[in-house]
Amino acid sequence: MFAIKPINQDFAEQIQSKIEQKTKPLGALGLLETLAKQIALIKSSREQDKVFSVDDKLAIKQPTLLIFAADHGIAEEGVSIASSAVTQQMVLNFLNGGAAINCFCRTNNMALRVIDAGILMPLEHPNLIQQSLGQSTQNFSQQAAMSLAQVEQGIALGAQVAQQQIANGSNLLAFGEMGIGNTSSAAAIMAAVLNLKAEQCVGAGTGIDQTALKKKTRLIQQALELHQEKLHQEKPYQEKSNQERLNHLLNILACVGGYEVVQLVGAMLGAAEKQCMILIDGFIVTAAALVAVKINPNVRDYMVFCHQSNEQGHQLMLQALKAKPLLSLGLRLGEGTGAALALPLIDAAVSFYNDMASFEAAGVEVEV
Amino acid sequence: MFAIKPINQDFAEQIQSKIEQKTKPLGALGLLETLAKQIALIKSSREQDKVFSVDDKLAIKQPTLLIFAADHGIAEEGVSIASSAVTQQMVLNFLNGGAAINCFCRTNNMALRVIDAGILMPLEHPNLIQQSLGQSTQNFSQQAAMSLAQVEQGIALGAQVAQQQIANGSNLLAFGEMGIGNTSSAAAIMAAVLNLKAEQCVGAGTGIDQTALKKKTRLIQQALELHQEKLHQEKPYQEKSNQERLNHLLNILACVGGYEVVQLVGAMLGAAEKQCMILIDGFIVTAAALVAVKINPNVRDYMVFCHQSNEQGHQLMLQALKAKPLLSLGLRLGEGTGAALALPLIDAAVSFYNDMASFEAAGVEVEV
Repeated sequence: MFAIKPINQDFAEQIQSKIEQKTKPLGALGLLETLAKQIALIKSSREQDKVFSVDDKLAIKQPTLLIFAADHGIAEEGVSIASSAVTQQMVLNFLNGGAAINCFCRTNNMALRVIDAGILMPLEHPNLIQQSLGQSTQNFSQQAAMSLAQVEQGIALGAQVAQQQIANGSNLLAFGEMGIGNTSSAAAIMAAVLNLKAEQCVGAGTGIDQTALKKKTRLIQQALELHQEKLHQEKPYQEKSNQERLNHLLNILACVGGYEVVQLVGAMLGAAEKQCMILIDGFIVTAAALVAVKINPNVRDYMVFCHQSNEQGHQLMLQALKAKPLLSLGLRLGEGTGAALALPLIDAAVSFYNDMASFEAAGVEVEV
Repeated sequence: MFAIKPINQDFAEQIQSKIEQKTKPLGALGLLETLAKQIALIKSSREQDKVFSVDDKLAIKQPTLLIFAADHGIAEEGVSIASSAVTQQMVLNFLNGGAAINCFCRTNNMALRVIDAGILMPLEHPNLIQQSLGQSTQNFSQQAAMSLAQVEQGIALGAQVAQQQIANGSNLLAFGEMGIGNTSSAAAIMAAVLNLKAEQCVGAGTGIDQTALKKKTRLIQQALELHQEKLHQEKPYQEKSNQERLNHLLNILACVGGYEVVQLVGAMLGAAEKQCMILIDGFIVTAAALVAVKINPNVRDYMVFCHQSNEQGHQLMLQALKAKPLLSLGLRLGEGTGAALALPLIDAAVSFYNDMASFEAAGVEVEV
């Protein structure tokens, strides 16, 4: 579907050696060292046809957060603390600059774009990117959430909007979402991809009580059974051909996905095709990341995981993705808040890589 | 010693209510909500004589990081990966802008001041604040690290330099340190304050091997025994009078402290007296915070804990201080790096408190 190159490892040793010569004990900057190395490797990969030098400065250009918003038929079952009307209201809040993500993008100098991927009650607004796949998905506990054609269209539209930002000068894209009911879709996707029971994947979302949580779990398990003919994994992904794997994943998205989720999957694949850094936030965006990585494992090389939520389901997905997020602040809001909050850590990693003195330059003794 | 007011709780409910009316599920911003509330409470306490309103904007003014540097007699035993000469070399690196902390202060717009609290080989530099208590402490495995008079002088000097920054317009001070051998001093202080064995407090510091770690543990246990007459806790702190508690803590600092540690303790007490926010970083700064809080528990109200290191000793101190740090990045560098990296999270908390829309203002439905 997408031509995604893995990170070029040719400069890995040189980059590591540059980091080790900085005036600090070996490894003393922890996760920031891993991050700096990844950013440098991505740069070296992008420039593999030109002459890459470890002495070149790294730079994050026009960091941009894309929020994909959509509604979910499953919300009519009462699986969320709010009604679908709130999706539209919050989209308007984003456009007016009043949400948490607006505050965090402002303080951290990140551009924000809001996309209607399929909200129930459309909005006219000059700053809203219109690429709706429909006014809410179907209720996936009773039928498929969308058609395979919509999945494919959504992936193409997501990739297109991501690549547009890159064409305009961004080399880092972060992703967020808004959609009442979308933790249910994400949990069902996760269960289908990782072959887990609903109860291992479902959490309290933004804060439902125990009764609602039980209902949500039951509905998702029911949905997994309803769609089992398409979701059933007759063999593990590693034994499937690329085409079989892709078909299975597209079917998962059609059965239990969301319009924002499919566009997120497309945006990640599209960003990775352009060798752009990808910031992954919370539960829903991570479910999209899981699908993107299963579609094309090379996408993983471009991803930075930003926030570890307290939800067990999120932790299981992060394990499956071999991800160790930068932050763990107990956020459970979505919107891409974890990604926006992590941007200063990325700037810090770039800064020490670029500007920190080496032992030699600073005249500091090294132990041998 | 210092007149430190506890945080005024009169506005706690109003502040909490303001946070709960923001357009997000209850508690969905996790630790950032706790942080915003603390910052607002500190402001309300500072302004208790004037009219405080929850509608007033919070503001972090001239955030400043103070690095206290000093040398340790214990370093001659080979408890560190580097020799004492490196303390001076790193101080010069700070002054020349080449260290990790310089990079992080630059990217996060934090001012940096470097203080000679007692390095072995003094430096002449226009930007170095000179308030040395001596050229390295004594080797505390053989004798007291310093005199009680030096402890008292150090606390006064630390308070003075902190209060000078506040007089110049800062309302947030972060603390860092540099001193080869200072994890040994911090571990010994921690053991004496919390009445623990050396082995529960000692870690690999910036990266010594198992042999050196065993030696470090043995030396610290030996020091605790050597000084046991002064360090012995015949009754717990809560049963001691203020004067008994203070005497015990000052004796701990004299026996096993460091010149940078005593100045850090003074700086925290001095900052809290002026109701200034205090950012606490890693192992050594946390040991100083532990002493400051034991001297005057009200100091705790002004502290924000920034980084949780992987060292078991650090975790035990944080538990004793009931602290849940903002970051956990696997840093083990000191210098105040964790505090500088946490500043954007504080800015984010201020930003959402000030600028995020309420449900009413944004026209978003609230669940009842």
